[in-house]
Amino acid sequence: MQNSPIGLMDSGVGGLTVLKKVQRLLPTEDTVFLGDQARLPYGPRTVAEVTKFTRQIARFLQREAHIKMLVIACNTATAAALTTMQKELDIPVVGVIAPGARAATQVTRNHRIGVIATTGTVKSDQYRQTILAKDNRNTVVSVACQDLVTLVEANDLTSDHAKQVVATDLAPLLDQDIDTLVMGCTHFPLLRPLIQEVMGDQVTLVDPGTATANMVTSLLDYWNLANPKTGSSATYYTTGNAADFNNLANHWLDQTPVQAMHLPLSELTTTLEVNDK
Amino acid sequence: MQNSPIGLMDSGVGGLTVLKKVQRLLPTEDTVFLGDQARLPYGPRTVAEVTKFTRQIARFLQREAHIKMLVIACNTATAAALTTMQKELDIPVVGVIAPGARAATQVTRNHRIGVIATTGTVKSDQYRQTILAKDNRNTVVSVACQDLVTLVEANDLTSDHAKQVVATDLAPLLDQDIDTLVMGCTHFPLLRPLIQEVMGDQVTLVDPGTATANMVTSLLDYWNLANPKTGSSATYYTTGNAADFNNLANHWLDQTPVQAMHLPLSELTTTLEVNDK
Repeated sequence: MQNSPIGLMDSGVGGLTVLKKVQRLLPTEDTVFLGDQARLPYGPRTVAEVTKFTRQIARFLQREAHIKMLVIACNTATAAALTTMQKELDIPVVGVIAPGARAATQVTRNHRIGVIATTGTVKSDQYRQTILAKDNRNTVVSVACQDLVTLVEANDLTSDHAKQVVATDLAPLLDQDIDTLVMGCTHFPLLRPLIQEVMGDQVTLVDPGTATANMVTSLLDYWNLANPKTGSSATYYTTGNAADFNNLANHWLDQTPVQAMHLPLSELTTTLEVNDK
Repeated sequence: MQNSPIGLMDSGVGGLTVLKKVQRLLPTEDTVFLGDQARLPYGPRTVAEVTKFTRQIARFLQREAHIKMLVIACNTATAAALTTMQKELDIPVVGVIAPGARAATQVTRNHRIGVIATTGTVKSDQYRQTILAKDNRNTVVSVACQDLVTLVEANDLTSDHAKQVVATDLAPLLDQDIDTLVMGCTHFPLLRPLIQEVMGDQVTLVDPGTATANMVTSLLDYWNLANPKTGSSATYYTTGNAADFNNLANHWLDQTPVQAMHLPLSELTTTLEVNDK
């Protein structure tokens, strides 16, 4: 089990921001990443649908890669499916919301925390609930910013258009006196410079990916699941266009060129039908 | 269970260095600390004896304080008893060696790591094994420094005598080309300035307490065990002299005056006899 890879999944390429932190903290761990670009965005979908997709991906990663741990590197899928997956799978399953909420409570000084996320994550209310559960003095202001996912998937991170979209989406947060902003979608850290510019330097941006990578490390060590070897391998799947995925991944990961494999959706749905009886 | 305290134990007062990190990271958690000063040092004792003491303390903390998690804030007891306690107790049990080893592998650049610890911890070889298991390029040089425990328990942290003892004990590490030194006994961070002076600025000191507090946070969040309230309480027991304990604790914790309760050893040993049939 120690030699098995860690699996990470996302609706698209945003989860690569979490993968990057995991790879940096755990340089001897093999990883396998699946971006479900053929079906993104997950944000506007129902809980039942996102849970079904997450289950399909988890089963594929267990069947094909024998993963020892699953990281749901997607806030929408964490909100919808983490509890279900923790019950259904026989491996540890880590989401991004609990670590992100924890990081926010450790950063804030005035106990006013903003959360930007997809429609689905905001609707789930999980960031607010989790942040309050850690310290009920906090006030949480959540804003759905679905457009930012579209920008990132189009690799539109710096244009005037991108700046305009970010400014418009974040406008409701500007008069809320928040000192901390959770980037509650794994796509958003790619837009960090634009987000910081709009929010101003007095607001600390929290990337739940960093805290999630710390949790992954703690859990691996707690269960003695860390890989006792040198070096690592990384495997990438996308249900979308592999060339597009590679372009984005190579741009962001700053390391060995990524060569993603295209995974037809039928590979995921077949798995479900076979196992779901 | 969420409202229950986190239990921490040590052979003496060294574990307070871990408690301090836990309190800082988790300001809404109640804690209960037990220092077994009547029977310190644990370092030269047998594995069987340290395991017996650890079991007695764990049972007391479960019975009297209903702790939701046990932190073995003592490297000797972690080396001797962590695995046994994880099997025997129905709550999560966290030791300090795995987090400390992880932190060291993340800090080192030349893969040469020193470990200073008690005789018992060095004899267990667990730091070396755990560090190698995380990255087998590492070389670990371990040195037993039992005298440093005595200095700390006597609150002798800055005298010429203390400087002399630290210099003598660390001498074997000076020509080993290490760039990282694990303070593998929870007493040692209290001597950090002296240790740093002897080792020189090019050596990074690792305090496993920091990494342990991070693991505690991750596990609380993973199992949804974090306490959803504001404020915290802290309870202190010592099997030794309460006034001495309070002196040391107040000197180090920099917060509300500590009022430890003296716990007669019979309270621990009786528990064992009752439950152990």
